[in-house]
Amino acid sequence: MTARGVDALLLSVGADLPYFTGYRAMPLERLTMLVLPVDAPATLVLPAFEAPRVTPLPGVFSLEPWEETDDPLSLVAGLCRSARRLGVGDTTWSVFLLGLQSSLAGAEFSAASALVGELRRRKDAGEADLLRQAGAAADRVVARLDHTRFAGKTERELAAEIAAMVVAEGHESAAFSIVASGPNGASPHHEAGSRVISPGDAVVVDFGGRLHGYHSDITRTFFVGDPPARVRKVHAVVAAAQEAGVAASGPGVPAQEVDRAARRVIAAAGFGSHFTHRTGHGIGLEEHEAPYLVEGNAVPLEPGMAFSVEPGVYLPGEFGVRLEDIVLVTGGGVERLNGAPRHLHSVD
Amino acid sequence: MTARGVDALLLSVGADLPYFTGYRAMPLERLTMLVLPVDAPATLVLPAFEAPRVTPLPGVFSLEPWEETDDPLSLVAGLCRSARRLGVGDTTWSVFLLGLQSSLAGAEFSAASALVGELRRRKDAGEADLLRQAGAAADRVVARLDHTRFAGKTERELAAEIAAMVVAEGHESAAFSIVASGPNGASPHHEAGSRVISPGDAVVVDFGGRLHGYHSDITRTFFVGDPPARVRKVHAVVAAAQEAGVAASGPGVPAQEVDRAARRVIAAAGFGSHFTHRTGHGIGLEEHEAPYLVEGNAVPLEPGMAFSVEPGVYLPGEFGVRLEDIVLVTGGGVERLNGAPRHLHSVD
Repeated sequence: MTARGVDALLLSVGADLPYFTGYRAMPLERLTMLVLPVDAPATLVLPAFEAPRVTPLPGVFSLEPWEETDDPLSLVAGLCRSARRLGVGDTTWSVFLLGLQSSLAGAEFSAASALVGELRRRKDAGEADLLRQAGAAADRVVARLDHTRFAGKTERELAAEIAAMVVAEGHESAAFSIVASGPNGASPHHEAGSRVISPGDAVVVDFGGRLHGYHSDITRTFFVGDPPARVRKVHAVVAAAQEAGVAASGPGVPAQEVDRAARRVIAAAGFGSHFTHRTGHGIGLEEHEAPYLVEGNAVPLEPGMAFSVEPGVYLPGEFGVRLEDIVLVTGGGVERLNGAPRHLHSVD
Repeated sequence: MTARGVDALLLSVGADLPYFTGYRAMPLERLTMLVLPVDAPATLVLPAFEAPRVTPLPGVFSLEPWEETDDPLSLVAGLCRSARRLGVGDTTWSVFLLGLQSSLAGAEFSAASALVGELRRRKDAGEADLLRQAGAAADRVVARLDHTRFAGKTERELAAEIAAMVVAEGHESAAFSIVASGPNGASPHHEAGSRVISPGDAVVVDFGGRLHGYHSDITRTFFVGDPPARVRKVHAVVAAAQEAGVAASGPGVPAQEVDRAARRVIAAAGFGSHFTHRTGHGIGLEEHEAPYLVEGNAVPLEPGMAFSVEPGVYLPGEFGVRLEDIVLVTGGGVERLNGAPRHLHSVD
């Protein structure tokens, strides 16, 4: 903090708070904020009736509960009186930042991620192990999906089944489940809807959950029945692109090189304009976090970084294919955290 | 906007965006932002590959998609060049607000809720009907819980079952489910955990989901087996307090009077210090929104406002009891949007 010129960090909802305190606050309107000064123990300002949820760490952080009729922003401002340069957690609600800017008129505010992100993007052994466990749990859900009936269900029904499997296989909660069937597969972030899945559909299934706070995130493409040549061909291209992305990953490699390696394969097969998103994102306490595998990001990969490699091809009006695994950078390359078969999965 | 001195609204993740556009953005790191100037149609800046998720409204708002290697903040800044006073959505991520403050150095930023909140807190007939449907769906989940086995399950398992029921009964997604058994019930926002529910436990069950974007939120207290006199007594006090809160609600009543009415009953029974939170919160596109039923909030209730009435008593080391329904203010009083029986529910 001294080197970066930050007198105090103000961390609220999202991942920074559990990273430093083990406590994830509800993303609601009652302010929870860790005030972490450069030269003193931290204070967690939180609703009094939520205090039983948190175990303070003596000498590291203490609790400053506020009652329903108190003003929590003035509590925070009081704790920041001697700080001039404040780093605010990226996902902190703007209404709280605006309130603090108005009550601490002389202070300078900047994004805490410039500092916190650098710590969070390199996972330690304990974090890597949780990501490994989350990856294995996601793999088990894929194994169950191979024996799950797709045809006749709405996307939303299948998404709810997947969410239940995510919990049954050891996550504490399901984070999301994308089920994009038939032409809906051409929308990479399609929201599972009322479309009924039918024989002859390709179905992009992308889901994840949280295990002791750390995320899984996996995508496999399924086909209801026997896939025709065109779907098999597109899937083979995406699988080769994913393999190329993983093979290109390793310590010292600029993040954008992973994107380039995957994109090159898809472009060479003639589908370049149909791979419409970056190749991947870091993962940890957040579903998406640094490093991002995208053209323009030259940050070198380092041991401990964990990220997705997830190329896709999206054919409007037809179907989509995506394949996603999490990898962890090691001293000599990467470790794959997902082992579910990477072929096109045929289901009923 | 003219009357409030706002040249443009900048609305991002959360409820403001679906309120104006029908589109709810994923709360992730790729910026989605509606730029709504006082004197021109609005523009929705969003990731290009998510554009298929949105239907623009010609003459109302158009789409400005950005590619993965573009800088979305400079797109937004470009659209705001002629605006000096900007209202920023409350739940917009601080990292984006900080970016805009740095690129639009001459502009003044304020919380959009001062303006948007006033519109959103009065529900129109269509919104009221969706809240009514969501309430009925939540009631059906309670009916199923009466026939669900509690004993032998962990809180987390029961919470996952409830989430599946919430979807099965017609919500498009489950928002949350609190299952707080035995002494855990004394923590109002307890996170469902690994505690195994056993005969003799009181269990606070508080859950909700989203139906066409609008939330349900209901709490009932269950007892595994035959409840002893102390639990029955506390439940009777909470039920009377809830009834008093509902009875006090109506057009023209200051919000805090609802809180006072419920609190008075609990205090008179000797449990005043164990009712540790406000009596309720508004509900709509957000789980919690204005108006808040809390001491110090004198805003008069108006027809169309919808909110929870949810007193509770929390006895550390023993158990908790809470009872929650949603009500809608009408011309002459309130309409209850939940009809599930309000007694202490005995289960196996």
